[in-house]
Amino acid sequence: MLKLSNLQKKDLNYVWHPCSQMKDYEEFPPIVITEGKGVYLYDENNKEYMDVVSSWWVNLFGHANERISKSLTEQAFQLEHTIFANFTHKPAIYLAEKLVKLTPDGLAKVFFADNGSSAIEIALKMSFQYHLQKGKANKTRFLALTDAYHGETLGALSVGGVELYNQIYHPLLLDTIRAQGPDCFRCPFNNTPNSCDTPCISYVEEQLELYHEEISAIIVEPLIQAAAGMKMYPPRYLKKLKDLCLQYDIHLIADEIAVGFGRTGTLFACEQAGISPDFMCLSKGLTGGYLPLSVVLTTDDIYDAFYDDYNSMKAFLHSHSYTGNPLACRVALEVLNIFEDNNYLEIIKEKSAYMKKVASETFTYQPYVGEYRQTGMVGAIELVKNKETKEPFPSEERIGYKIYQLALEKGLLLRPLGHVLYFMPPYIITKEEIDRMISITNEVIQEYFTNTKEV
Amino acid sequence: MLKLSNLQKKDLNYVWHPCSQMKDYEEFPPIVITEGKGVYLYDENNKEYMDVVSSWWVNLFGHANERISKSLTEQAFQLEHTIFANFTHKPAIYLAEKLVKLTPDGLAKVFFADNGSSAIEIALKMSFQYHLQKGKANKTRFLALTDAYHGETLGALSVGGVELYNQIYHPLLLDTIRAQGPDCFRCPFNNTPNSCDTPCISYVEEQLELYHEEISAIIVEPLIQAAAGMKMYPPRYLKKLKDLCLQYDIHLIADEIAVGFGRTGTLFACEQAGISPDFMCLSKGLTGGYLPLSVVLTTDDIYDAFYDDYNSMKAFLHSHSYTGNPLACRVALEVLNIFEDNNYLEIIKEKSAYMKKVASETFTYQPYVGEYRQTGMVGAIELVKNKETKEPFPSEERIGYKIYQLALEKGLLLRPLGHVLYFMPPYIITKEEIDRMISITNEVIQEYFTNTKEV
Ligand SMILES: Cc1ncc(COP(=O)(O)O)c(C=O)c1O
Ligand SMILES: Cc1ncc(COP(=O)(O)O)c(C=O)c1O
Repeated sequence: MLKLSNLQKKDLNYVWHPCSQMKDYEEFPPIVITEGKGVYLYDENNKEYMDVVSSWWVNLFGHANERISKSLTEQAFQLEHTIFANFTHKPAIYLAEKLVKLTPDGLAKVFFADNGSSAIEIALKMSFQYHLQKGKANKTRFLALTDAYHGETLGALSVGGVELYNQIYHPLLLDTIRAQGPDCFRCPFNNTPNSCDTPCISYVEEQLELYHEEISAIIVEPLIQAAAGMKMYPPRYLKKLKDLCLQYDIHLIADEIAVGFGRTGTLFACEQAGISPDFMCLSKGLTGGYLPLSVVLTTDDIYDAFYDDYNSMKAFLHSHSYTGNPLACRVALEVLNIFEDNNYLEIIKEKSAYMKKVASETFTYQPYVGEYRQTGMVGAIELVKNKETKEPFPSEERIGYKIYQLALEKGLLLRPLGHVLYFMPPYIITKEEIDRMISITNEVIQEYFTNTKEV
Repeated sequence: MLKLSNLQKKDLNYVWHPCSQMKDYEEFPPIVITEGKGVYLYDENNKEYMDVVSSWWVNLFGHANERISKSLTEQAFQLEHTIFANFTHKPAIYLAEKLVKLTPDGLAKVFFADNGSSAIEIALKMSFQYHLQKGKANKTRFLALTDAYHGETLGALSVGGVELYNQIYHPLLLDTIRAQGPDCFRCPFNNTPNSCDTPCISYVEEQLELYHEEISAIIVEPLIQAAAGMKMYPPRYLKKLKDLCLQYDIHLIADEIAVGFGRTGTLFACEQAGISPDFMCLSKGLTGGYLPLSVVLTTDDIYDAFYDDYNSMKAFLHSHSYTGNPLACRVALEVLNIFEDNNYLEIIKEKSAYMKKVASETFTYQPYVGEYRQTGMVGAIELVKNKETKEPFPSEERIGYKIYQLALEKGLLLRPLGHVLYFMPPYIITKEEIDRMISITNEVIQEYFTNTKEV
């Protein structure tokens, strides 16, 4: 029997955790965090954990960041919230202005919501309603890629392609048109990402030829399919998607919820393809890991299709109670200020180059590592049973989960996706910390495979 | 041409507001709020607005509340956020414990999310998955009432019954089974709420007889269908719904997002019917109007149906990035402390009795007032064209919207629902402020009808 603290007992008594089989917690009880500082989280016994997954990819500048906490405090004593229909406030106005200026040309208007999933729902509803109001009532479906992840509410889940999350809910989901996405690690054309001309776009083309008249929008995670296991693909693919959208009068929804705010090396991933989507969804890093907030940026063309006399009934009537929350907007504004004031894109460039060098050297030639890949500050180690054939480990073995536990023992928070271990650290991580992150990861991989072989 | 401030111009340049026809803003530009204090919001010209709709029903103890802001500040410098899978923290643990103790018996576990809509999606998904894992794969549909409102994401919108919000999205929505809900103002049985035995439950019974085998859950807003225009009905109806759920092996989802936390006079509306639902969704007042946060409370029976070895694949894999956000949880905890420390249920009792007396006297006998109704701290004035026949005003006239504008001129924020004006003030409102709220409302109603008649 494990000895649990009172807080752990209480947690297990009352809390149902997200994305968890709660029975796992019998053997691996919840870790009670009492403090955060920089890259680190501290538990009730003052044990330190280096948070190199940025707490599900949300943190940018460290935990309990002084500057962000100060701006949050100031806002709390001034204006914590106000209704956002007919009313507005400085944090939302300045944030919207900044976002429009920073995102690709053409994105002109900002609609607010509370989490990533809701942002996706908004983009889907807006796209559908746009076409309806333009006389194309038949555009009622969406095209999404295999292995996509866009969130958990039923609309967002419908366009997702990771079966682990959505298969069971099939009777509740939209009939999404699915095209096989890029798979650079196990490329069906036997290309490598650097040399290829993305012939895999043909899978999308095939579906478009069949269904373009019914399709309202294509939704995509630019450059990295994150939840699928940090699957990376080249910008060229994105450019081709955009061209296809133009050709067939279909919207492009860029879900930059995971990849936005510098993760891929540019402020937004779409920049690398030189494209501007019709909708861009942002969340996670938007508030530097502080508060739930999301936005959907869209074009004047789309805004205008809803702009008419009230009685035309063309308005977009979506709302959430806390839409445009001043506390979250103020924090987001401060995050963008920190980004600019410190020229974080340069910092990311330097640190990601360093991380790539050390991690590639460390992992690439390991026996159970299929590949080490990296885009910007996102690095991923794909574990395979057979390096030559790329045969994966059976998911029932839960290799990632077991290595995760070993890493936690050593003070590294490294929550994997299936058999993919990844690094998506806060940008304040130092080179010494990058070294340590990589060497502990290496240790635990070795440890795991040594122990398993012995059995 | 209206003269706009620079902030207003910027807002209109960049922000797309929720639940708004943006063209309306040409004649009625957004009001830029720069400060909040108690019941009041202040705009950039220091004009004061008494916020008697609690900024979309979220605020409980006033804007920029000292005590809440202090606890938020403390938390921000200690631990702003942590991943919530395998990890936990005191604010979430204590909040979950408190909520389980305060809600009806039987509700035992707390699942966190970020907004009301997401909480509804979680309840729907859990209910469906529960039945599936219990061998009832045919339970794929939900029963909801006409005029229900449960949020805007596609799942939540599917169970909503207010056509204004969901009709246009019909091709994207679930095929919800709809039963006519209670309509005490225009009762088809010609009863009054005090005397009747809710024969209108028969509309639900009819649907259940036809479809019970396909139905996973009934979803309901206990005691008040808020967005529909504060439609109120007696607790007996709720009790009968619960009995029907038991009879047919169907879950009851109580959406207390708008009515929870004392709004109806009891801490939760379900208490008045003496029932315990299978799921209770809470948000809005949960954080006293500070931050987006929601919870779904559920039973051990439901929790247990997901509790198994990982490889059984029975886990509930739903998550949002900011699930269990410590800042929001800490604020929610402080809100519950304030509630208890000041015995707010007593305060609500006293203030709502006062409000009922004054408002009834003021409005009941006005020519265009169909009825004044009140439950707890929620009061509603139903405007009608013909008091005798209860014939409503045509919605194109936008009576509510016009009276709202008149009220704003006089410093009262009174955002109506169609032709229903309502009061849902923060609990800190004083009797003098209640008087003022009622007298200004009366003035603007008079003013509107005098002016319209003259035309
Ligand atoms: C690409 C992407 N889209 C959408 C979401 C959903 O966001 P949220 O978890 O805030 O609902 C996520 C979250 O992990 C994501 O990675
Ligand atoms: C009863 C009810 N349910 C659900 C919701 C949706 O909550 P949110 O706006 O936070 O998504 C609302 C919001 O107005 C509501 O009143």
